[in-house]
Amino acid sequence: MIMEEYDKNMKRQVYFVSDSTGITVEALGHSLLSQFQDLRFEYTTLRYVDSLNKVENLCQSISDNESELRPLIFSTLVDGQLRAKLSKTDAHVFDLMGEFLTPLEEILRTQASSALGHTHGQGPDKHYEHRMDAVNFALLNDDGITTKQLDRADIILIGPSRSGKTPTCLYLAMQYGVYAANYPLVEEDFELMRLPKVLAQRHDRLFGLSISAERLHQIREVRRPDSEYASIKQCQYEVNQIGILYRENRIPTCEVTQRSVEEIATRILPYLHLP
Amino acid sequence: MIMEEYDKNMKRQVYFVSDSTGITVEALGHSLLSQFQDLRFEYTTLRYVDSLNKVENLCQSISDNESELRPLIFSTLVDGQLRAKLSKTDAHVFDLMGEFLTPLEEILRTQASSALGHTHGQGPDKHYEHRMDAVNFALLNDDGITTKQLDRADIILIGPSRSGKTPTCLYLAMQYGVYAANYPLVEEDFELMRLPKVLAQRHDRLFGLSISAERLHQIREVRRPDSEYASIKQCQYEVNQIGILYRENRIPTCEVTQRSVEEIATRILPYLHLP
Repeated sequence: MIMEEYDKNMKRQVYFVSDSTGITVEALGHSLLSQFQDLRFEYTTLRYVDSLNKVENLCQSISDNESELRPLIFSTLVDGQLRAKLSKTDAHVFDLMGEFLTPLEEILRTQASSALGHTHGQGPDKHYEHRMDAVNFALLNDDGITTKQLDRADIILIGPSRSGKTPTCLYLAMQYGVYAANYPLVEEDFELMRLPKVLAQRHDRLFGLSISAERLHQIREVRRPDSEYASIKQCQYEVNQIGILYRENRIPTCEVTQRSVEEIATRILPYLHLP
Repeated sequence: MIMEEYDKNMKRQVYFVSDSTGITVEALGHSLLSQFQDLRFEYTTLRYVDSLNKVENLCQSISDNESELRPLIFSTLVDGQLRAKLSKTDAHVFDLMGEFLTPLEEILRTQASSALGHTHGQGPDKHYEHRMDAVNFALLNDDGITTKQLDRADIILIGPSRSGKTPTCLYLAMQYGVYAANYPLVEEDFELMRLPKVLAQRHDRLFGLSISAERLHQIREVRRPDSEYASIKQCQYEVNQIGILYRENRIPTCEVTQRSVEEIATRILPYLHLP
């Protein structure tokens, strides 16, 4: 491989092109380019590119571009005609569908249907309505607002206040249609060092979030600066007591301090209490 | 292309393999296979596959599999050693990283860093905290609970009750870090046929969701069966009045009847009121 020198501070244009939401191509493109952290990229996503006209506009704006670095295009266009047009533009084109659909057609001995992107559609099945119902469930069963529906929960997250229970529940619902509730542990639970009855009765659905006292302190300070609630002393106390509760009750846990909501949610999936 | 016959009712095993959350490879794999809607697949996602041992276990379970159809594997493993091991398994392997990283290295004249998947991590920048702050903003500014923070909103969604404002706000926040509020229009607004003052003052941030009366009726019936609120007459009235309000006030809108939250959110992105 020739490694010619060029100024790595120059920004290279990157286009994500999709006939649908663009969520998939953005994710794959970012994932690939995150392997080149020393370089600088400028991202543009073009969504719902579903006509020759739109592809021509893109090609035109690329040839009008005066950057010295040839742009990168990552595309999940499905339509053969649009892909052919895009391949002729003055850029490095990574055609994700072209790359994989042809071998898949051979393996599966079936022609691809060339239907536009379906990944994030409502879809023909009930899965979409299920996901939206799960989002409503997460909102209604947040922070122990009500306990009437806890038996419908696939999982009940526990953990100190501000450890990320709510966004994790919402993500599990939105992405995977998981019915996720969460329940706050309060001062009394720490003092008595036992699970509230409503949780003890549903032991098999509990999942604990663990966080470092320092990180918890940092997050709470943003919320309520200089409060007792945010003090490092209080955070250390709660983190310590919760750790003991988790161990004594053999509750599965996930360390969340350095993890994103997506990482936490996907680490919880194997523990779901599914009927 | 040879199109040999085989029983299309047989399920083929599909494995999504990732060293990280697996969200990207699931999305791309589903997107590709959605082009083959006549065939039946059974999906398994293997996340956090970050050791030779885990890859070996996968290879073993595939060779133990007695299905007549050779499985498909879609992989975003980054590590070269793991990819090499996976490529030797008895399955059709689609190695997304291998396919694209080598050409990218040539184009970019830089070695890929082989860092594990970063797409859904907390990342080195502030973007993750920004996204979580946006989720909190969406929760606090849902359904007009408070109007004190409306000036911080990048967008304010309006629309009839149950048209999908809340999940759309949450998705915009979670995925894109957008500060999205939503505000309900009520009976009085329809009667007076004017925007509430709090909205009229922020006209440049308004975005309207449009939904068919039939679909709205259907959704509300699930929530409150046989109520006046859910009746087709009430839904028709609200949908009609809101349509006039949108037009008279030149508010950009999105038709949501057949669309998923992901589709609605990505169609709103071009209208963001960014500072």
